[in-house]
Amino acid sequence: MAKQKKQPRPRAQTPKGFRDYFGAEVVARQRMLERIARIYRLYGFEALETSAVETVEALGKFLPDVDRPNAGVFAWQEADVPGGGSGEWLALRYDMTAPLARVFAQHRNALPTPYRRYAMGPVWRNEKPGPGRFRQFYQCDADIVGSASMAADAEICAMLADALEAAGIARGDYLIRINNRKVLSGVLEAVDPAGAVDRDAVLRTIDKFDKVGAEGVAALLGKGRLDASGAYIEGVGLTEAQAAPVLAFLTSRGESAAETLANLRAAVGESAVGAEGIGELEQIAESLAAQGYGADRVVIDPSVVRGLGYYTGPVFEAELTFEITDDKGRKRQFGSVAGGGRYDDLVKRFTGQVVPATGVSIGVDRLLAALEARGQAGAAEARGPVVVTVMDRTEMASYQAMAAELRAAGIRAEVYLGNPRNFGNQLKYADKRAAPVAVIAGEDERARGVVQLKDLALGAKIAENASLEEWKSRPAQFEVPRADLVAGVRRILEGTDG
Amino acid sequence: MAKQKKQPRPRAQTPKGFRDYFGAEVVARQRMLERIARIYRLYGFEALETSAVETVEALGKFLPDVDRPNAGVFAWQEADVPGGGSGEWLALRYDMTAPLARVFAQHRNALPTPYRRYAMGPVWRNEKPGPGRFRQFYQCDADIVGSASMAADAEICAMLADALEAAGIARGDYLIRINNRKVLSGVLEAVDPAGAVDRDAVLRTIDKFDKVGAEGVAALLGKGRLDASGAYIEGVGLTEAQAAPVLAFLTSRGESAAETLANLRAAVGESAVGAEGIGELEQIAESLAAQGYGADRVVIDPSVVRGLGYYTGPVFEAELTFEITDDKGRKRQFGSVAGGGRYDDLVKRFTGQVVPATGVSIGVDRLLAALEARGQAGAAEARGPVVVTVMDRTEMASYQAMAAELRAAGIRAEVYLGNPRNFGNQLKYADKRAAPVAVIAGEDERARGVVQLKDLALGAKIAENASLEEWKSRPAQFEVPRADLVAGVRRILEGTDG
Repeated sequence: MAKQKKQPRPRAQTPKGFRDYFGAEVVARQRMLERIARIYRLYGFEALETSAVETVEALGKFLPDVDRPNAGVFAWQEADVPGGGSGEWLALRYDMTAPLARVFAQHRNALPTPYRRYAMGPVWRNEKPGPGRFRQFYQCDADIVGSASMAADAEICAMLADALEAAGIARGDYLIRINNRKVLSGVLEAVDPAGAVDRDAVLRTIDKFDKVGAEGVAALLGKGRLDASGAYIEGVGLTEAQAAPVLAFLTSRGESAAETLANLRAAVGESAVGAEGIGELEQIAESLAAQGYGADRVVIDPSVVRGLGYYTGPVFEAELTFEITDDKGRKRQFGSVAGGGRYDDLVKRFTGQVVPATGVSIGVDRLLAALEARGQAGAAEARGPVVVTVMDRTEMASYQAMAAELRAAGIRAEVYLGNPRNFGNQLKYADKRAAPVAVIAGEDERARGVVQLKDLALGAKIAENASLEEWKSRPAQFEVPRADLVAGVRRILEGTDG
Repeated sequence: MAKQKKQPRPRAQTPKGFRDYFGAEVVARQRMLERIARIYRLYGFEALETSAVETVEALGKFLPDVDRPNAGVFAWQEADVPGGGSGEWLALRYDMTAPLARVFAQHRNALPTPYRRYAMGPVWRNEKPGPGRFRQFYQCDADIVGSASMAADAEICAMLADALEAAGIARGDYLIRINNRKVLSGVLEAVDPAGAVDRDAVLRTIDKFDKVGAEGVAALLGKGRLDASGAYIEGVGLTEAQAAPVLAFLTSRGESAAETLANLRAAVGESAVGAEGIGELEQIAESLAAQGYGADRVVIDPSVVRGLGYYTGPVFEAELTFEITDDKGRKRQFGSVAGGGRYDDLVKRFTGQVVPATGVSIGVDRLLAALEARGQAGAAEARGPVVVTVMDRTEMASYQAMAAELRAAGIRAEVYLGNPRNFGNQLKYADKRAAPVAVIAGEDERARGVVQLKDLALGAKIAENASLEEWKSRPAQFEVPRADLVAGVRRILEGTDG
């Protein structure tokens, strides 16, 4: 440590855009992941855990945010050391789909086909951080690799609905919207048969529909527009006549699936790929209807695009439909918490063979934030441990024996391990830990073979602002024989929530 | 995708030293983490999840492996983009302890003190990969920050024993060995009062005791030795007279704690820090004995050093004592699966204030490997889903309705979503998935309002090598009315294990 002393002190801070999660937050997320995984397993999916690190080559460049270095990923080059790396570029995964494509290509002979897998864990995006926007966040994905059937897409949408409900979102509080990239391709074929404009740029522009509205998208499809910050954003260069059908397509959601499909048929004109996309949407709609998933849960909505470049057919998005109050006190819709789609070309990148695939990704941290905004999270926050206080530091072993007895009975317990001199600090600690019970045993108690038990939850309830003296006289404290420690603590715990 | 086609195909491979985990492996690890976490919570610890990424400055350089670039971590420099990073160096965490020190320094006013936290998750080491040695692996840590009491160290060791047993290691199959860095410092003070040799280098050398034995360590403490590969490894430069007491110290474990402590007292001579370390070991031993943790679970063993540079007092290591058969058919001890110790200076790096801390880290992947080597893992491997086969692809909706009914009843189920043309492939798929039941319904069954149920587990049992024709005639297949689908499947499932 001698070296450190001479250097300036390091800053105790997470890197920009990263954060820590404490206690109940971690437990709440874990519980949500388990609930979603239970649904995924019910649908026949198996777990897969890939490493956080992939080669840049295997990941490919499919992120919508291309304004950042390394196309939005955290990447580094391996040093060329003897017997070690070969100087190749590695990166943190930015989603769970690109690694899945790599896994399927690598292990395809050993895996069943279709391969249904789910994956849960963090992903990393080298994006500009912002309020509530972090560079590491959790995803919980399920994908079917090796099925070209629209039944697979329908099943993914049905499962997504079930998973959201399992996570605590009530029916009616979410809506899954489906579209098809082929329909958009059909529209673009109709307005730009020569393929003069960059299709990916059109996609990214349309994906901003929710943020900048029809007028904003119209400008960005044409010459461009001034940003909110005053910067001029270059447009993709469609003429007004070309942009109009694209906008009409975006807003062609009708009262019913049949009406929406009719609108889409008009929008794609003679395009074969457009007609194919509409046919696929019809199949999905029929399949969902047969399984009892109606328009209260899943609808066709042409304004859904999804920013990722690798989708080739149906795309889905789940949005929460209730309003929340944001940090600035404004009411707003919570928005998207999950998305996915069909990506028939991702495995082909590796193998040259077309392997059809479809899947969904749930943004677990956003979903948790939504539940919190509704006051539904943290309700089941676990209570703290029983705290065995230290009245006499030469008796540590006897206090530890008490904690060991409680634990052996399945009761969370600990001995206070800070400096025991100030007893008030021990009670403050117990309070900060949300301890339900404090165990107290000094010389007097030891001589008489008893322990004092303080019911801290009850104590807190009856007098939140009482002084220490008042608090001490509270009837929420009583004495039990040392041999009845476990029984006495259990009596208090069973009388409280938790 | 047009761009990709023109480039050479990416290789479908994990980076060197990384791997994928499938199905039962993921579930087994998750279950082990939950069991260990339950013990940690029982001892009053709260969850903490930090991000995988930290600033290099916050992590510090404490890894024993200094032969690699970036001192064994995966690190990269942030690009200096407007509103984004400031060009600082970031890295993946190499353990859970350095991030904990950062968290405590950053949030110390909000956290209770002592702060008991547990953390589970992957860590990354930029080390030379080898057989069974990966660059991403799981740790499951528990630490107490803010307690100088040896009762904290004793509690960590007791908890480690409980956690190993909860994870499935029987009492008698593990041993927790305790030592104290201060005792080693005492020995070094006695042999090298001027501090002429590099103490960290001595530590790293002694840490190789298990690998190279007493003779090897003697050579490395002196002039050096030839490696197994024929490379000459420079020694730390002690004279033989200086090295002898260090070696004596390493091998001073006696028949009892009292005998070991007496040996240590002789080894440290007049050194004050040595005497302090011995006093601490005595306190830990007393505390553990009072809690009923005897020499069958925890012993004092001076040969334990732990490679990490940040330990300042007691160090612990849990080793599995049973023999396993390695890849080459040789019997060997499994070795260390957990380690830890006291690190009183890690928080001080940030704040300038001494914050005493102690903790343990369980190497979850090694522990899983140990259970697997004993044939204890994977026993409870979950069975696959019920597979609804597709006899008639125009009837997909009715097959999906069957799967939906089964799921609504809590039964894992899926429709076969591959190409249904070859029915044999569907059965092969069901087999590969370890499906307990296949549901079959063609035109005939539909007309009669029934479904066929095949008991695949039974079928597999009675004739592992039967032909498809034999298999088809098996009595393990029977017919139920369509309305009794769920009841019929349940009957089969309840008759099998799973």
